[in-house]
Amino acid sequence: MNLVFREARARDLKAIVAMLADDDLGRGRETPDDLEHYSLVFGQIEGDVRNAIVVAEQDGTVTGCLQITYITGLSRRGATRALVEGVRTAASARGQGVGEAMMRHAIEMARARRCTLVQLTSDKTRTRAHDFYRRLGFKMSHEGFKLDL
Amino acid sequence: MNLVFREARARDLKAIVAMLADDDLGRGRETPDDLEHYSLVFGQIEGDVRNAIVVAEQDGTVTGCLQITYITGLSRRGATRALVEGVRTAASARGQGVGEAMMRHAIEMARARRCTLVQLTSDKTRTRAHDFYRRLGFKMSHEGFKLDL
Repeated sequence: MNLVFREARARDLKAIVAMLADDDLGRGRETPDDLEHYSLVFGQIEGDVRNAIVVAEQDGTVTGCLQITYITGLSRRGATRALVEGVRTAASARGQGVGEAMMRHAIEMARARRCTLVQLTSDKTRTRAHDFYRRLGFKMSHEGFKLDL
Repeated sequence: MNLVFREARARDLKAIVAMLADDDLGRGRETPDDLEHYSLVFGQIEGDVRNAIVVAEQDGTVTGCLQITYITGLSRRGATRALVEGVRTAASARGQGVGEAMMRHAIEMARARRCTLVQLTSDKTRTRAHDFYRRLGFKMSHEGFKLDL
């Protein structure tokens, strides 16, 4: 499998938003036919050294994405943690280990930034994802709370 | 109750780290007698417009703290979310509503930054905290995963 990981570029936006939308929970939340606002936001993310969208690419096709954000705090002796959000694999590429390889890449990115912790949350309904993260060594130690504004 | 909220200043560091350490989980994780590294990290947080430590102050005494980080992503139509970490109330000030008022302040900070979501995780053993967040309107909808590096 010729699989590479790199930071997303503006031309990947359509493929990324398509992956975010092609998901049981994302379907009602995204507007893949209207990329204007995503494009504006993508520019902000590109300008932030602590925030990145990473894509998986196979033979020129984007088949996965995730967001990684490096957050420095005081707790845990002033630790920097990596927060991972929006992990998706294209439907056409599932079952090939893309998600696992992409997460391992994200963990290495976190190590390279001297993070001492990688964290993420996953909707309680995504039980297959929970098994996936546990296989990667994550501990399901926390409850995740969300408040819509 | 004369309670105000403001961004932390360097002179608050000792009180903040003392609160982080005075906690069942924080006790083994913090070094309140050695602030040098916390001080360095605090400078980095002060220099980051997307990251803040907020303190509660009552009559000149710091009685609470939390960290709020604004994270822009592509998902949810390019939403910005606020992540809250390290919520603590000083032992001497518990049961007075400091934590609730501080969280309501954080939610207003998130609104002011046009966040559409506030999120946080809480260790599964902190069942009283879970009730607290639910009373504030948070939904315990996600599993929280952590990987120590």
